[in-house]
Formats: sequence, C-alpha cells, structure tokens
Amino acid sequence: MSGTLHLIGVGPGDPDLLTIRAVRILRTAHVVAYPATSEESAFAREIAADYIEPDAILMPVTIPMAIERSPAQTAYDGAAALILDHLARDRNVAWLCEGDPLFYGSAMYLLSRLNGAARVEIVPGVTSLTASAAAIARPLAARNEILKVLPAPLPDETLRPELLATPAAAIIKVGRHFDRIRDLLRETGHAPNAIVVEHATTIRQRITPLLSFGYGERPYFSTILCYRGDEAWG
Amino acid sequence: MSGTLHLIGVGPGDPDLLTIRAVRILRTAHVVAYPATSEESAFAREIAADYIEPDAILMPVTIPMAIERSPAQTAYDGAAALILDHLARDRNVAWLCEGDPLFYGSAMYLLSRLNGAARVEIVPGVTSLTASAAAIARPLAARNEILKVLPAPLPDETLRPELLATPAAAIIKVGRHFDRIRDLLRETGHAPNAIVVEHATTIRQRITPLLSFGYGERPYFSTILCYRGDEAWG
Repeated sequence: MSGTLHLIGVGPGDPDLLTIRAVRILRTAHVVAYPATSEESAFAREIAADYIEPDAILMPVTIPMAIERSPAQTAYDGAAALILDHLARDRNVAWLCEGDPLFYGSAMYLLSRLNGAARVEIVPGVTSLTASAAAIARPLAARNEILKVLPAPLPDETLRPELLATPAAAIIKVGRHFDRIRDLLRETGHAPNAIVVEHATTIRQRITPLLSFGYGERPYFSTILCYRGDEAWG
Repeated sequence: MSGTLHLIGVGPGDPDLLTIRAVRILRTAHVVAYPATSEESAFAREIAADYIEPDAILMPVTIPMAIERSPAQTAYDGAAALILDHLARDRNVAWLCEGDPLFYGSAMYLLSRLNGAARVEIVPGVTSLTASAAAIARPLAARNEILKVLPAPLPDETLRPELLATPAAAIIKVGRHFDRIRDLLRETGHAPNAIVVEHATTIRQRITPLLSFGYGERPYFSTILCYRGDEAWG
C-alpha cells in the first residue's frame, strides 16, 4: 500500500479559494475522486476543474440523497474499496470535498473506513461558513461571543434552547427545513437580523434578509447567519 | 478614494494554506498591513512572507495585549486613519489576518471603522478550527451534531451549560485560562476525549490529549477539540 489518500477541501465555490496545497496535490494525483448526485452533478469537481490534470483518472461516487442512511453508507463502502485498490497500485488519490473535509464534510465517511488501512492526509479548506460571513462583511461572532453551528434537520426542541441562549449562530443544511427554521428564528428573536447567503462566492451568490423571503420560496445551498440585536462589534 | 482595502485570511500557519486569491491580491498590493505584538512578532506576516512583494510598503500595527479594550481600540483607530490615507493615494492595501478575517479575527475592528468610507473586499481563509480537526484526522462534529465554538475567557457559568448540552465543541483563545477550562471539561465529561492542538499546521504543531498536560504546563496557540463519548462517526 504505497499510494496516499488526500482528503482535500476545495472551498465554498470560487476556484480562487482553493489553497496552494490543494492545487499542488492535484498536480500529482493519479486518481481524482469526488461525491456526485444521481443527476451527475458534482460540485466539488466543478470547483476544482481548472486544477485537475487531463490524464488523471476521474472517479465520481454517486451518493444517494435519501433520508435513510444505508444507501449512502453502501456507496461509501464501495468508494473505499475502489480507493484501496488504487492505493495498492501505488496511485495517489485525491478525494475532493466542498468546503473543508472535516466541517460537516464527506471526508469523515472515508476516514472511518480507511484510516489505519491507508496513509491519509487531510488538507483543510475554506468553509461556506466563513465565506458567507465574508459575503455580508460581518463577523460570525464578536469578540468573546459563542458561535453555534446548528444543522437545520435537528428538531425545534433541540434548536430552540440553543438559539435562546446565544446571539450568534449559523444554520447549515437548510434545504427543505427553511419554513420551519424561519418560524423558529422569529420566535427566538433572531429573524430581524438574520441573513441568508446562497451559493457563497459563486456567480450565483445571493444575499437576502431572512424576512424578505416569500412563503413557498426556498433558498438553495445556503447558510443562515443569525445575530440577535444589532450590537456594535467595532 | 480609489484604492481597495483587502482583508485577507492567510490561514492557520502553513504558507501552503493561503488561497490562490490571497496570493493574487498580495501580488498587486501596494501596502501590506498586519497586527503585531509589542515584541515585534507578527504571525500573519510570517505566514504570508513568501508572497509579499519586495517593494510593498509594510505597515505593522502594534496592538497592545492588555485586558482592557481601549489601548487596542486606539491602535485600530490609528491604523484605520493610516489605511484611509493610503487608499486616498490610490494604493491598494492588504490587511493580513491569521486564519479567517471574520472568524474571531482582527478584521472586524477595521471593518467597523472603514466600511462605508472605503471599498473593502474580504478574502476568507482556512481557520485554525478546521486545521486542528485535520491535524487529528477527526470530524469537528458528526452528521447533524451541533458544533459550538467557545471562547475560553467566558466564565464557567456561561460555558458549563453549553458544554453539558452538547457533545462537540471547540475551545478557542485558551491561553491563561487553560487550568480552569481543563477542570470544567472534567466536570462536563468532555475531558477524556478532548485533544489539544497547538500551532496547527506549523512545524511546531503538537497534539496532546488534554489529560496528558501536567498542572502548571500550558499550551500555546491552541484549540481544544472536545468530544463526549466516543461515538462512531463513520
């Protein structure tokens, strides 16, 4: 087993936000693997496209977007086996992750399967979290404030006390939970200052105050940055 | 006013973790400004050193490390005035921030003074948070877990309930608060699985289980990654 698996964060969307190290690794990767949806869309590969060598072996891994976990688990099992096979043939493999590999990224599913069995290196990347803050030119949290990253699929009973206890939060994985989350943020007092950032750093980037979304409208690839009050942060 | 102020995240320490965009901006910046301590150490400049043009005007800004805020505020007031003056002379200014500009970074102090008065662009960077997770090859939080970023200077009464409510947290700004934080993490059940990452991504990087630190010993430039239990995250 002499190939190395590189788990690479490719950043939030703008190819300019790849790191020097990510680019350097892509230059020598024999195999470039990445998650894809069944519609053959693969955002991580699109982000890194300019830096993938023309003779690299491309390895898209279709991850079923089901709510149950087992179809995705099976896909990662298969990907891990394929990657091990490449590594055994002395090929270096780069696995592309949107954002950062270990910030709610896909890399953990490969790490849990391959750590110990293969040499694994991790290249951190720019997250959509800080990219969204940059888009609205506002700190995620001020000074010694707590920052909470709250996945939207969690139930209101879990999210409510977390929001009530803290002024600064970022809601991720919003998708189909948007209407519920907006109602919750109204209740906790965060809604008036909450901002929705969609497609951060890409040409489709859109910045919208939460309360300007019409009912029925839903943001895509978005992070909701929440602040309570409008405290001075200077 | 035709110069642009670029607030640039230079990442956690390894110069390879600068982004392509940060490097590109440094190539055309007339002035490179950065926070420095009174001992003339300036970590952000050290990180970016290879990419600063030899004819750039260097502008170190000494930020007093006092607990009271007003000396630092005065330093940022002075820096803002100097930067405005450069911008008025058509010079582009790059302000270097360790990690990401808006993730507990120094950029907010310039933003609050200059936003509106100058054209400001923000380049997000890799945080020490995700770099620390990469160092220990472990996700910050699994799947739909909440992740909390907890500044160590906050009092135990604030931190305790936050820790008790959640398995995954990252403690930042540890410094002189280390002994107190360790005691608190013992109490909340996080200590046995907590890892201290010092100087992430630099040659001085050191990874130590929290409970292996002797009393009196104190980590430097560190993040404590906390997990409760040892749940499977694969």
